Amino acid sequence: MQPVAIGLLGLGTVGAEVARLVMDREGAFARRVGRWVVLRKVAVRDPHKGRSLDLPIDRLSTDPVEVAGAPEVDVVVELMGGIEPARTAVLAALRAGKDVVTANKALLAEHGAEIFDAARRSGRAVAFEGAVGGGIPIIQSLGVGLAGNRFRFLAAILNGTCNFILSNMTRSGLSYDEALRQAQSLGYAEADPALDVDGTDTAHKLAILVQLAFGASVTTALIPRQGIDTLQSADIQYAAELGYTVKLLAVARDHGEAGLELRVAPRLVRRGSPLAEVTGPDNAIRTVGEPVGATLISGQGAGAGPTASAVIGDLIDVIVGRAALTARSLDLWPGGAPEPRLCSPRDVRRRSYLRFSIADRPGVLGSIAQVLGRHGVSIASVIQHDPGEDDQPDAPVPLVMMTHLASEADLDAAMEAIDRLLVVSPPSVRLGVED
Amino acid sequence: MQPVAIGLLGLGTVGAEVARLVMDREGAFARRVGRWVVLRKVAVRDPHKGRSLDLPIDRLSTDPVEVAGAPEVDVVVELMGGIEPARTAVLAALRAGKDVVTANKALLAEHGAEIFDAARRSGRAVAFEGAVGGGIPIIQSLGVGLAGNRFRFLAAILNGTCNFILSNMTRSGLSYDEALRQAQSLGYAEADPALDVDGTDTAHKLAILVQLAFGASVTTALIPRQGIDTLQSADIQYAAELGYTVKLLAVARDHGEAGLELRVAPRLVRRGSPLAEVTGPDNAIRTVGEPVGATLISGQGAGAGPTASAVIGDLIDVIVGRAALTARSLDLWPGGAPEPRLCSPRDVRRRSYLRFSIADRPGVLGSIAQVLGRHGVSIASVIQHDPGEDDQPDAPVPLVMMTHLASEADLDAAMEAIDRLLVVSPPSVRLGVED
Repeated sequence: MQPVAIGLLGLGTVGAEVARLVMDREGAFARRVGRWVVLRKVAVRDPHKGRSLDLPIDRLSTDPVEVAGAPEVDVVVELMGGIEPARTAVLAALRAGKDVVTANKALLAEHGAEIFDAARRSGRAVAFEGAVGGGIPIIQSLGVGLAGNRFRFLAAILNGTCNFILSNMTRSGLSYDEALRQAQSLGYAEADPALDVDGTDTAHKLAILVQLAFGASVTTALIPRQGIDTLQSADIQYAAELGYTVKLLAVARDHGEAGLELRVAPRLVRRGSPLAEVTGPDNAIRTVGEPVGATLISGQGAGAGPTASAVIGDLIDVIVGRAALTARSLDLWPGGAPEPRLCSPRDVRRRSYLRFSIADRPGVLGSIAQVLGRHGVSIASVIQHDPGEDDQPDAPVPLVMMTHLASEADLDAAMEAIDRLLVVSPPSVRLGVED
Repeated sequence: MQPVAIGLLGLGTVGAEVARLVMDREGAFARRVGRWVVLRKVAVRDPHKGRSLDLPIDRLSTDPVEVAGAPEVDVVVELMGGIEPARTAVLAALRAGKDVVTANKALLAEHGAEIFDAARRSGRAVAFEGAVGGGIPIIQSLGVGLAGNRFRFLAAILNGTCNFILSNMTRSGLSYDEALRQAQSLGYAEADPALDVDGTDTAHKLAILVQLAFGASVTTALIPRQGIDTLQSADIQYAAELGYTVKLLAVARDHGEAGLELRVAPRLVRRGSPLAEVTGPDNAIRTVGEPVGATLISGQGAGAGPTASAVIGDLIDVIVGRAALTARSLDLWPGGAPEPRLCSPRDVRRRSYLRFSIADRPGVLGSIAQVLGRHGVSIASVIQHDPGEDDQPDAPVPLVMMTHLASEADLDAAMEAIDRLLVVSPPSVRLGVED
């Protein structure tokens, strides 16, 4: 039997680990898929760079699109990341009749419809376990193991950089900047962490999960998002005082007729609940489906080893022909699907954590409570510490409140009115609670 | 296209839920598998029993083997449980060229080799996600999503009844008997809970997971096991004092040359670690693989809804033809495989919790410590509370110890010698720590 020839695009940390596993474990691999698997061509930026991998120079190319379309390649593994040239290369591979394995979340979140359309036209499969949650088999779980369910709810920690930073802000009381620098020095954050910390990366991954769990095609632009880069350590400490941990959560909730709620934002999660206990660079996905109930899956969400594990699993899936059957049964990113109905802030009710900077004088708490009450927001608990003798007499003092369930729209209006009060120094802080 | 005709064996709580889902969601089901799925024949004990399902009486049969072999049935779903007549029916189905979905852990653990041999001979698939962990997609995860890994370690909570009882003994300080009665009254334990609480059910499930994760064919008889039915609430309280929770764990660990460690036993698990926080009737499976690292998956481990979710997922898998490809790539329970090498107690080193009932007089702690030391077991911490004035002067008092790492063989010998001391009232208690 002919061996299966892999064309690998990208030889960064994940690409190098995949190449190593394909070469080191060729026997185990062959037993699993029934054919030998060989690394036929590899697209890299600089073919002359020193590498620990023993790859003949004639297998290297600087042109990913050429590798993707090369007639001697059977399966293309795209691990370059980013939109271009990954998009052009993946489309070239599919049009040339090759199956594709990719770990590129941005590409699928932004161009899923185009890519899956190309895959359908050529009858090929696109496998993408590595695009969400590193080595956690969440794509297989949602698409295959839990395929008999109707999902109502999904909440997930999908960015290891953010979770590492938040865990350290919580545990050591560090500021955001200090925790970010620590994450960078330990390799848990990039030199330019913008797409991680502003919630974009999490939104990419949520768009993919929502396609699988709810069959809804959303691009990242449709997902309201808020990152962790404006979080203050004071709010993490107050949340802890109230029994909560702050996590950057991706949330999708089916409100039935009212539509789908989608959101990426820092949320208060009750300590002791499963997502609150996910610390460091780990990721976790909690789903609630009918009939299965609640399920949680967690593990290392990024890094060479975990992502390579997902890519190798996908390679086996593609080579044995299973991925093609899954693609047909799931019909992901179908052409001409209407945009899903997203629910309005009026239909989303949640408890919220609020922090105001107020003038330290009588009646202020009363005026704020009055504004909240006028907008139908009722208060569950209040923290106001005695500022003590050391503080300047006229310095604003913090006032922390936890509300009962209230609609987002009512809270929007209330917060706007409160920030106009003379005794309040805006902007006030507001974080939702995910119960 | 012809519809797919299901033959369902067993219409208990899980069977009835599967039947309901197949009938209620036929549209969604057809979209997933590309054909209509109909419930053609159902084997029940009593066809005249009142049922909420709207099933014509001519689809019912009292003979599962006849339903399994019926020419008008395409796929057989076995949900009777127990070895016979399930075994005969499943073999009949496979020999008649039908794919099989089963949630029967005892059947696979005891007769996996025979059943998978029959499946291979007829080129059919056996899907069994529901056999382990209820709705948790652990079989798909190990067999497909994580298929590129080498597993070194697996620890799991696999019996919801035991976990519910232990959670309540921990939280409310109940005795085993009280917690069991509470579990029975809430429907979390059978009237005869023997196979659950003595560890047999957990061992069945471990045998299946070990086949998937380590490729080792073990029957339940090879797995040393200890249940929770002899646990005393005092030990749960002392464990809590030391920062641990007691869980019934299934553990498999690859010691390389020394062999495979397999064990079902109550274990001390450090509070705050992922498995310690799995409470109530939930199940969870933690695996450590290379390159993926540690992964945890948890959810409801039993009950009609979760198990039906797994069965429906398997049905889709079988009907679209994916299960057959998985079966070929995994080659489970291969014929003629040698029995795996199991490691000896000499090669297993762990920390242990010990409780002795000792005479309350000087020098006893010293004699016990001496015996332990003679066998190479060193002590990490000791709890001995002042018995107070209320106790009878000659009543034995408890002495609790936590050891450092020691081999099981050394500890076996030490415990035997200690229980022979005149100042000790045997039997002493010993529980391993799973770090």
